[in-house]
Amino acid sequence: MHSPPQQPHRNGETTPYPIPNHPFHSTVSLRKLRRFNYLILVFRIASFSFSLASFIFMLSTSRGPNSPRWYHFDAFRLVVGANAIVALYSLFEMVASVWEISRGATVFSEVLQVWFDFGHDQVFAYLLLSADSAGTALARVLKGRDTCTAWNAFCIQADVAIALGFIGFLFLGFSSLLSGFRVACFIIKGSRFHL
Amino acid sequence: MHSPPQQPHRNGETTPYPIPNHPFHSTVSLRKLRRFNYLILVFRIASFSFSLASFIFMLSTSRGPNSPRWYHFDAFRLVVGANAIVALYSLFEMVASVWEISRGATVFSEVLQVWFDFGHDQVFAYLLLSADSAGTALARVLKGRDTCTAWNAFCIQADVAIALGFIGFLFLGFSSLLSGFRVACFIIKGSRFHL
Repeated sequence: MHSPPQQPHRNGETTPYPIPNHPFHSTVSLRKLRRFNYLILVFRIASFSFSLASFIFMLSTSRGPNSPRWYHFDAFRLVVGANAIVALYSLFEMVASVWEISRGATVFSEVLQVWFDFGHDQVFAYLLLSADSAGTALARVLKGRDTCTAWNAFCIQADVAIALGFIGFLFLGFSSLLSGFRVACFIIKGSRFHL
Repeated sequence: MHSPPQQPHRNGETTPYPIPNHPFHSTVSLRKLRRFNYLILVFRIASFSFSLASFIFMLSTSRGPNSPRWYHFDAFRLVVGANAIVALYSLFEMVASVWEISRGATVFSEVLQVWFDFGHDQVFAYLLLSADSAGTALARVLKGRDTCTAWNAFCIQADVAIALGFIGFLFLGFSSLLSGFRVACFIIKGSRFHL
């Protein structure tokens, strides 16, 4: 990228390149800030990919007309729903992250953005973990019953979908640590950057 | 309490009343810091109480010699284990919190304490939520089977134990928000206090 080096902005939503707060920011600090934003983007992409994969895997578990279906089981419905929500949310956050890296400004106002990110990261991480744990418990119960004897492929694919959901949760959890740190920076210093 | 007003300390583990960093701290700031510590203590007490209650409830589900027992079910074993761990951890954190309020110093060195608290809060909150979600999924499966028809009291008591565990998780989640904020303060300002 040959764009000019980005500076941290307090209220970047109105002008893409406002006057920086700290005109003498060292290039080391700028590099660190940029690395922080790229790290968030990587976590968003990973959590989007894994939750979307989990969603698709669970949706395509049915084998033939008599096969059991995911919507016959409460916990699997929860897995599908939670992964769909997280995939959509991560897609939005990916766009927001790219926007922030390319324009140096948040999509919403800074205060709204940091709280929006952190709040949703926390709630959706707990939601996804809860859904996947419930799915695991159900999958374990099914293992000892006729369903998995007659339809082994269904059970294996459900297991894979749940495992993918757990990986998606891991990346969402990492994102929530970083967005939590940005909230704390905002509370303490009035800016989402700590450098 | 008639003890002298406490000041925030950076490395309070060596001397109980070291020279404060900011001798001109306003009484408003001190009151806010103390309120923050009391809030953490309240959350610790609540999460201890609910996870201990959940543990005891799940342990006492058996009714008579032929009744099903919690250790016959994977997910209920997980609920018992997770609640026991959280109850023990919360008990330790209660003591640490009282120590900090009364002496103005952390039990371990400050850097260790803030990371210890936050790391364990995060991991145990996820563990407890995961266990309770798995327990809920199993309880729902049991509802439609002979176990709950023959031993209704067992199922009801297991439900109550899981619900208590969820409330314990809520308070542990709140604690993890506060301890996360202390970690961020420590990273940004080199002290667990932001005032």
